[in-house]
Amino acid sequence: MKAVIVTIGDEILIGQIVDTNSNFIAKELDRIGVETHEMISISDDKQHILNTFKQLQNKVDIVIVTGGLGPTKDDVTKKTFCEYFNDELVVNPEVLAHVTQLIEGFYKRPISQLNKDQALVPSKCTVLHNKMGTAPGMWMKKENTVFVSLPGVPYEMKYLVENEIIPKLVREYERPYIIHKTILTYGQGESLVAERIEQWENNLPEFIKLAYLPNPGRVRLRLTARGTNKEKLEEAIESNVRSLDAIIHDIIVGYEENETIETVVGKLLAKQNQTVATAESCTGGKIASLLSSVPGSSSYFKGSVVSYATEVKVNVLGIPQELVDQFSVVSAEVASAMAQNVKKLLKTDYALATTGNAGPSKGDSDAEIGTVFIALATPEGVITEEFNFGQPREKVIDRATVKSLEILQKEILKIVR
Amino acid sequence: MKAVIVTIGDEILIGQIVDTNSNFIAKELDRIGVETHEMISISDDKQHILNTFKQLQNKVDIVIVTGGLGPTKDDVTKKTFCEYFNDELVVNPEVLAHVTQLIEGFYKRPISQLNKDQALVPSKCTVLHNKMGTAPGMWMKKENTVFVSLPGVPYEMKYLVENEIIPKLVREYERPYIIHKTILTYGQGESLVAERIEQWENNLPEFIKLAYLPNPGRVRLRLTARGTNKEKLEEAIESNVRSLDAIIHDIIVGYEENETIETVVGKLLAKQNQTVATAESCTGGKIASLLSSVPGSSSYFKGSVVSYATEVKVNVLGIPQELVDQFSVVSAEVASAMAQNVKKLLKTDYALATTGNAGPSKGDSDAEIGTVFIALATPEGVITEEFNFGQPREKVIDRATVKSLEILQKEILKIVR
Repeated sequence: MKAVIVTIGDEILIGQIVDTNSNFIAKELDRIGVETHEMISISDDKQHILNTFKQLQNKVDIVIVTGGLGPTKDDVTKKTFCEYFNDELVVNPEVLAHVTQLIEGFYKRPISQLNKDQALVPSKCTVLHNKMGTAPGMWMKKENTVFVSLPGVPYEMKYLVENEIIPKLVREYERPYIIHKTILTYGQGESLVAERIEQWENNLPEFIKLAYLPNPGRVRLRLTARGTNKEKLEEAIESNVRSLDAIIHDIIVGYEENETIETVVGKLLAKQNQTVATAESCTGGKIASLLSSVPGSSSYFKGSVVSYATEVKVNVLGIPQELVDQFSVVSAEVASAMAQNVKKLLKTDYALATTGNAGPSKGDSDAEIGTVFIALATPEGVITEEFNFGQPREKVIDRATVKSLEILQKEILKIVR
Repeated sequence: MKAVIVTIGDEILIGQIVDTNSNFIAKELDRIGVETHEMISISDDKQHILNTFKQLQNKVDIVIVTGGLGPTKDDVTKKTFCEYFNDELVVNPEVLAHVTQLIEGFYKRPISQLNKDQALVPSKCTVLHNKMGTAPGMWMKKENTVFVSLPGVPYEMKYLVENEIIPKLVREYERPYIIHKTILTYGQGESLVAERIEQWENNLPEFIKLAYLPNPGRVRLRLTARGTNKEKLEEAIESNVRSLDAIIHDIIVGYEENETIETVVGKLLAKQNQTVATAESCTGGKIASLLSSVPGSSSYFKGSVVSYATEVKVNVLGIPQELVDQFSVVSAEVASAMAQNVKKLLKTDYALATTGNAGPSKGDSDAEIGTVFIALATPEGVITEEFNFGQPREKVIDRATVKSLEILQKEILKIVR
């Protein structure tokens, strides 16, 4: 089963916002074995939308459209659906009742004509009721292709995908199984990894596909198996992962099952009943922000001292001024003291610390731009590592953040294993 | 001049990564008056790429392709370019020298065949030299359409767009001017705003387009003017913004010139020579992380105490345990004390504090999920506001973060004006 995701909105095409809706929908479709053939972002223009629909008609099974559904003049999707399906707008009483309740009941103001118009839907459509907002979703079929329209507001779209689209697809369509397994490697470049595993790669069965996903400092290898026999797919993936591990065991650092590093680390800490804090200079609170983004993180994440200014390192973290003067603020010694002191201050089992120079210009130290020291205080002691993450600033911050969490993950795994 | 941005990569189509490259490119193109007609994400499949190229041929002026350029087997873009342009791969000596220098000089290991193959480019292409990595960009023209291929690694792509593509387009093509102005409103919904400005909207000149960009809690109104006379466009935008301001002055909170709130706040602080700190509970360091993401932020951002656990509020920030017991940890009183204490501790002019319940389940307090108290300590005193940002967790954190920075912005502007 093939899908195309279409996002409508000039704000995407002029670069004002990043389209994250397509990513969410693609992930949900993939989970139930629906292949996303393309993602397309187009303008708020009726003719442009119609042309896109015509082009996709009977080429794919489902076209999921987001955006262009609000109450104002710049929204055109509904009119376009009517024209494409030769249909007309009628009032849907259930939607009208919901919109009225939301506006008059929750927002406490009289309902306007623009609000009422949100209850207008094409007469032939199946309405997807949007409990999170005023714009309903619509499901319509022409020949072999279903066209679905969803609001562009992310949490309204997410609600309709999770509660309406996915269950409907699962009920009404046969789908193959798609299984992914991503192997995380660290320390060798894409071409070197490719050379080492060339023979293994050539021996992969037809139904397993390999992809290289290079990130600065690490390469992820993604295996994708497609077929109708789920057990057979899983077995084939597992046996090939085992033979891969035999070849590049030295650089494999973990596996990713669509989980972020902060989720993985969080689960490990929760399982061990242990806690973590951070003392952040160049990462500026990003590690704390990632750790606390995970639901339930309050059971293992206690907090952080973001000591961006040197005086905060001295006054709040209690780093001796002499240590800073002797080794510079960007040094293994200061990173190590930051980690140990924040561990003590916040009374945790682990503590991560970062100090470095993210650029673009040099700060309170002479360290080269891109230099970052990461320290991890553990129940046993403290580890410090030096890195150069290059440029630009955002890359240095991102890499230092991910690397810190990876160091923590590795250390906990040592103890767990 | 019309462009289409094509991203190649199964990792986008299965939802493994969000495509942010297209957003960056669109923004850069918009800046020089090039209209992005569509963004398309397709698979690593030669036939799929070829079909896309054929479909776009002579329909747009330039097709910018990212991804599919690494050294490994899953990369197909280069071969597809050869087939589409009926060309063959030849070694480019300059690229070979660069790759050799990078591998042998920087990474200190012998160059492999896969590395050397990166210097292979179609014989008819204009090479775009990639100082940030090993994969070069390529520029080729067929009839009325230019096809450009760029690596998918974001900072390599960015380097080539900024240093090669944009300057080349500016030199070689006539382009109109595109001017945007985004007006930020706060506190009224999209339909209510639309009703109030209906007449003004109907009177906008043909060459100015209005778009509504609703976000939870605020609506942004974007005006876009297109034409050849830059001065005329600017004048028309300004006079229409003035007449809009006369109608909805009460809800306009600011203007956005493609700047993020953290950049705007940073500029204000730097200009006033003032400093800020944060004490964050439910936002978990996100405000600190945004503030410190801006280059040069060390001149005004001193740091943060992320007091996720209640004991950190007590032990590090010095919030009296009695205050927590009396009012609960999610309260105006605690938020206010957090802001004042972190201001004192970090010796800043301003300090923001957040405490709330982001969900999905209740924490150390009985406050409803979505409740957030934001406090701002200023040189004059402290302001506290209560919000309910609803659900889910990510929305609560994001809205509390943006709202905090907006409160800070508003307060500084009061003093500046």
